[in-house]
Amino acid sequence: MSLSPFEHPFLSGLLGDPEIISLFSAEADIEAMLRFEVALAQAQADCRVLADEDAAFIASRLAGFAPDMALLAQGVARDGVVIPEFVTQLRMAVGGPAAGKVHFGATSQDVIDTSLMLRLKTATDILASRLADCIAALEALDRRDGKRSMMGYTRMQAAIPIAVADRIGSWVAPLRRSKTRLATFAAQGFALQFGGAAGTLEKLDGKGEAVRAALAAHLGLPDRAQWQSQRDDIAEFAGLLSLLTGSLGKLGQDVALMAEAGGEIRLTGGGGSSAMPHKQNPVTAELLVTLARFNATQVSAMHQALVHEQERSGAAWMLEWLSLPHMVAATGVALSTTIRLTASIASLGSDTKG
Amino acid sequence: MSLSPFEHPFLSGLLGDPEIISLFSAEADIEAMLRFEVALAQAQADCRVLADEDAAFIASRLAGFAPDMALLAQGVARDGVVIPEFVTQLRMAVGGPAAGKVHFGATSQDVIDTSLMLRLKTATDILASRLADCIAALEALDRRDGKRSMMGYTRMQAAIPIAVADRIGSWVAPLRRSKTRLATFAAQGFALQFGGAAGTLEKLDGKGEAVRAALAAHLGLPDRAQWQSQRDDIAEFAGLLSLLTGSLGKLGQDVALMAEAGGEIRLTGGGGSSAMPHKQNPVTAELLVTLARFNATQVSAMHQALVHEQERSGAAWMLEWLSLPHMVAATGVALSTTIRLTASIASLGSDTKG
Amino acid sequence: MSLSPFEHPFLSGLLGDPEIISLFSAEADIEAMLRFEVALAQAQADCRVLADEDAAFIASRLAGFAPDMALLAQGVARDGVVIPEFVTQLRMAVGGPAAGKVHFGATSQDVIDTSLMLRLKTATDILASRLADCIAALEALDRRDGKRSMMGYTRMQAAIPIAVADRIGSWVAPLRRSKTRLATFAAQGFALQFGGAAGTLEKLDGKGEAVRAALAAHLGLPDRAQWQSQRDDIAEFAGLLSLLTGSLGKLGQDVALMAEAGGEIRLTGGGGSSAMPHKQNPVTAELLVTLARFNATQVSAMHQALVHEQERSGAAWMLEWLSLPHMVAATGVALSTTIRLTASIASLGSDTKG
Amino acid sequence: MSLSPFEHPFLSGLLGDPEIISLFSAEADIEAMLRFEVALAQAQADCRVLADEDAAFIASRLAGFAPDMALLAQGVARDGVVIPEFVTQLRMAVGGPAAGKVHFGATSQDVIDTSLMLRLKTATDILASRLADCIAALEALDRRDGKRSMMGYTRMQAAIPIAVADRIGSWVAPLRRSKTRLATFAAQGFALQFGGAAGTLEKLDGKGEAVRAALAAHLGLPDRAQWQSQRDDIAEFAGLLSLLTGSLGKLGQDVALMAEAGGEIRLTGGGGSSAMPHKQNPVTAELLVTLARFNATQVSAMHQALVHEQERSGAAWMLEWLSLPHMVAATGVALSTTIRLTASIASLGSDTKG
Repeated sequence: MSLSPFEHPFLSGLLGDPEIISLFSAEADIEAMLRFEVALAQAQADCRVLADEDAAFIASRLAGFAPDMALLAQGVARDGVVIPEFVTQLRMAVGGPAAGKVHFGATSQDVIDTSLMLRLKTATDILASRLADCIAALEALDRRDGKRSMMGYTRMQAAIPIAVADRIGSWVAPLRRSKTRLATFAAQGFALQFGGAAGTLEKLDGKGEAVRAALAAHLGLPDRAQWQSQRDDIAEFAGLLSLLTGSLGKLGQDVALMAEAGGEIRLTGGGGSSAMPHKQNPVTAELLVTLARFNATQVSAMHQALVHEQERSGAAWMLEWLSLPHMVAATGVALSTTIRLTASIASLGSDTKG
Repeated sequence: MSLSPFEHPFLSGLLGDPEIISLFSAEADIEAMLRFEVALAQAQADCRVLADEDAAFIASRLAGFAPDMALLAQGVARDGVVIPEFVTQLRMAVGGPAAGKVHFGATSQDVIDTSLMLRLKTATDILASRLADCIAALEALDRRDGKRSMMGYTRMQAAIPIAVADRIGSWVAPLRRSKTRLATFAAQGFALQFGGAAGTLEKLDGKGEAVRAALAAHLGLPDRAQWQSQRDDIAEFAGLLSLLTGSLGKLGQDVALMAEAGGEIRLTGGGGSSAMPHKQNPVTAELLVTLARFNATQVSAMHQALVHEQERSGAAWMLEWLSLPHMVAATGVALSTTIRLTASIASLGSDTKG
Repeated sequence: MSLSPFEHPFLSGLLGDPEIISLFSAEADIEAMLRFEVALAQAQADCRVLADEDAAFIASRLAGFAPDMALLAQGVARDGVVIPEFVTQLRMAVGGPAAGKVHFGATSQDVIDTSLMLRLKTATDILASRLADCIAALEALDRRDGKRSMMGYTRMQAAIPIAVADRIGSWVAPLRRSKTRLATFAAQGFALQFGGAAGTLEKLDGKGEAVRAALAAHLGLPDRAQWQSQRDDIAEFAGLLSLLTGSLGKLGQDVALMAEAGGEIRLTGGGGSSAMPHKQNPVTAELLVTLARFNATQVSAMHQALVHEQERSGAAWMLEWLSLPHMVAATGVALSTTIRLTASIASLGSDTKG
Repeated sequence: MSLSPFEHPFLSGLLGDPEIISLFSAEADIEAMLRFEVALAQAQADCRVLADEDAAFIASRLAGFAPDMALLAQGVARDGVVIPEFVTQLRMAVGGPAAGKVHFGATSQDVIDTSLMLRLKTATDILASRLADCIAALEALDRRDGKRSMMGYTRMQAAIPIAVADRIGSWVAPLRRSKTRLATFAAQGFALQFGGAAGTLEKLDGKGEAVRAALAAHLGLPDRAQWQSQRDDIAEFAGLLSLLTGSLGKLGQDVALMAEAGGEIRLTGGGGSSAMPHKQNPVTAELLVTLARFNATQVSAMHQALVHEQERSGAAWMLEWLSLPHMVAATGVALSTTIRLTASIASLGSDTKG
């Protein structure tokens, strides 16, 4: 079963992206949340909030911890978030006097948002690498066919001949900018979230900032004051994804239009039809348009979620949960699809100089 | 693993809806597509396009057919749609001279859209039944607490006292209208799609309409001329879902505001906090707001998909695939959540008359 | 000056629609609000809430009333709505003991929403009439060219020849459905809003429903219990507009694609280019796509506004003000543009039978 | 008349922003387009494409040029863009042999997009200045009330007391990031567009880049290769506006919730009610929520417009025209409104330390 074409048993043939999607699995989330809780104990030991032995005991007892998933689901049904039940299970796994020190001073959002940051950071590495491959593939196409000529079209009308390099340039320039945008964002954007009950780290009496800095260091994330109700960075990230898929959508639309006109593009391996065996549908090109429009829609939800009332908004937060993972997957698929599509372009343009 | 909170191992504790989601499983889709192909053979036999024996042979050979899912996924990767590979497998399963008659005159979209209609019809029955339960639960609440008094608020300010019945009335009236909207739509909206390669049923020489009518009858769907590039009905349906979740979102927002103000509502079983055991978070009320805003976003994608170029747009069509199933699930969850939330309202309003 | 292309000094050459836009002018709003206030006095006289003389005096003194617009703007700056200042001016214009009876029992939203209903009703009559003209124009096109042949395209690939009538049929069928949708909605959808401070008509002691029925009759609107915080009907209406523009957008996209391919369509009077005098840009066809995507975006705002908290939400209500008028204008322009585009189609399809 | 509340005779009392809106007037557009055409002649003289005398003649004859607006509107009706008619009028105003040199090598989009860049740059200066004022006002509020205590709320429930400074900090931190985002973008984002008919500056034989650099220098804009079909920067800018209004919407929502709860905020000058003179509606706070949700919707249109096919898409381009000016106005209004709202906060929090 699957509601989502990205994970669907057969639609995933076209829309799947196991590498990205695995980052949003329950297992990956649990692993990252566990990392947070262990690193928190270590950071608190660093700052003498916790005894070293307690932190070490917690770390050793939680190594290889696997939660009872059915109880987690029940916990979410009851509490709306997984952490109360997750922490209960962690404390049982730790046992003894150190059990009570697990999750000390933290709140659900600290764990959940930080787990997301850890995984978005990895996802962005993957996306950046694929984006570099896209750019390289288009540059290779440019080297091969760039000097050929093709008709330039404006407002759905033949205008004047242009070089194939001109068209490819209009595809690749936004991708280069998106590469820079992602890299700039990734340098600081995936920051630790750590604020406690209402953002004040009130249980850590004056050691809050030190613990936070140590925790960030343990997790390899930038340190920053809690941002639990400040969702601008996450919405900005969503926007960067949609800028990227939008630029790929333009490429896809252009290829589909060339494929329809015929003559100036030769594609290998287009999609077959159940009714018309002669057709070669530019399925990957169409898919790029779909994913562009999908992300262009979802970005609206992420911006609606900026109205995150008070110290924590369940309503706005859950709206992110429903939108952002799909946006990341759509971006991953769009990049892979572009690589596949570019590889399928047997020739672009015509020999005649314009 | 799951990208989608609706199917996530633990988030589904809150956001799950197995009854609705199972309708969007690969299995349910395959079952419905198989129903289409068998009914098509029967309809063609009815109209003497096929011999009765061929239709009977196809039906008997395909009883209990289970496809090779991995090959289906490969097919989708290649063709962008599952049908070419699916039909190949069906024909192998049938074998003999009748094999070639399977899927005769049909195209991918006929099977895929009709499968969707069959399943949306069932989904709508489920939603309608839950909606009736919601209305009944709110009516019961009205009978119990309607005569009590509460403060009316306009523009985020206390205005004048109103009866609890006034507030409940503002929740239930739109639900009654949504009930009528869904019933009116369901009477005709889930129509057979059958058009062949480009909508003209060109292989059926003049028998196209008769076969279509017979096919509709076999499937229990309204007969209608092919609508493959006319997506207004499906977008209208998406809008009806969002009107419903929007009205439930208003209810949720109202309950959350009452819960924050305290005093005029008593809820049992709110969500617990990992940092503040004393809190009872109105998680279900917040979730209704989330689902309203989620569908209010997705409805935009479904309307973008109205720009469905020419006889079949892969780009616009796949955009529906990415949006509509989640909208149906969100609606199902919103209805169940409202029933659960209403049941948790221990009292509403205060004894003092306004 | 104008922010909005619909009202811009020169962009309105393409995007203007004075007939529709005048309904959203301050003058038209004031006229409708004045109608409400006078009819309210009359309805209250009918129900013996007011003396007949008072109602007559109010009506006679307010005949030809023209407000001080600058003071209205100051009032909106202060109060967020125009009514407090508007009523102050009305009462000064009436003078004497009857002055205090103006607006009795009503609130800002009653006047503003009812004024909108009066004007949307007129707008819908205009849209319905243009839609009928569109359908007629396409039917005429079908009579002229329907039997000719053209290439059918699926997934951006030539598929098989179809009749021109098949393509036109895919344009006109959704328009016929939209015609029915608008007519069905208009029969009941533009209802009087009358609820008083918080929806309970508390100042009319038991005569509220009678006054409301009389008021509805005077205004020629359906009577309905107040719906001030129930925005489902208005969001549904917005959806109907977007379904219509979406269907016209499909038509526009198809024409633009035919114009790009050349050969099967001949358009007269396309847009000129400043750089390429030889070009004939299918500007009207492109505009239909623009307006479809514009409304497909705005419909999301109207659905977000369903989360209308408590007895009146300023935030959600103002979101409608920013979105709905533009949607109506976009729909009006799309219909006029379709009529203009259809008239410019000198021929469609080719003589050769498919 | 006005469709748009931003320009409406009385709604503009609340929603007006003459400073920003004047940048989107026809007059401002014409002035900027004129600047482009004169600077183009000068740049071409710099590069010896044009004689110095011709450029000087063009500049002197076009000083104070005022177009025939009615003919411009007719031109837009005919051509879809204003430039063909505008250039005709310019050439008539210049007269003589130099007339034909006006607009040489340029196309409509060069003029229209560059005019937009010039005006967005000015608009961004205004927004940046207001944003600095917002931040300063919030910092002053923090100095005055920051040490007081208030209840922290999570998930619509009282959590633990926090300092007023904590809440203000959650408002101001995203604004500081938005300030940086805008400044970073403005440094390079408003680049000259100059590409000629299809982006290749084909008429300037090898002098294209030199003319472009000179033109950029004359206009005070960054030089960049034509970006006519690459809309990522403009969509990114739209996103930055929505990130900013979203953060202000969070502030507005928080204030509205405090105003509803009462006790911890004292506002002066809230909006009056026509039915309840005792009320003080937090109109400005609500408006911030409205504007946040409005821009969160429009950003979707700007991202849809990324699918800008081929060398110029009329459909995608016009979608920007319908969305972006309103987004800039909404941002301007949100900033002014925040300044006004902050000034109206007579006190925040309570004396009791948390």
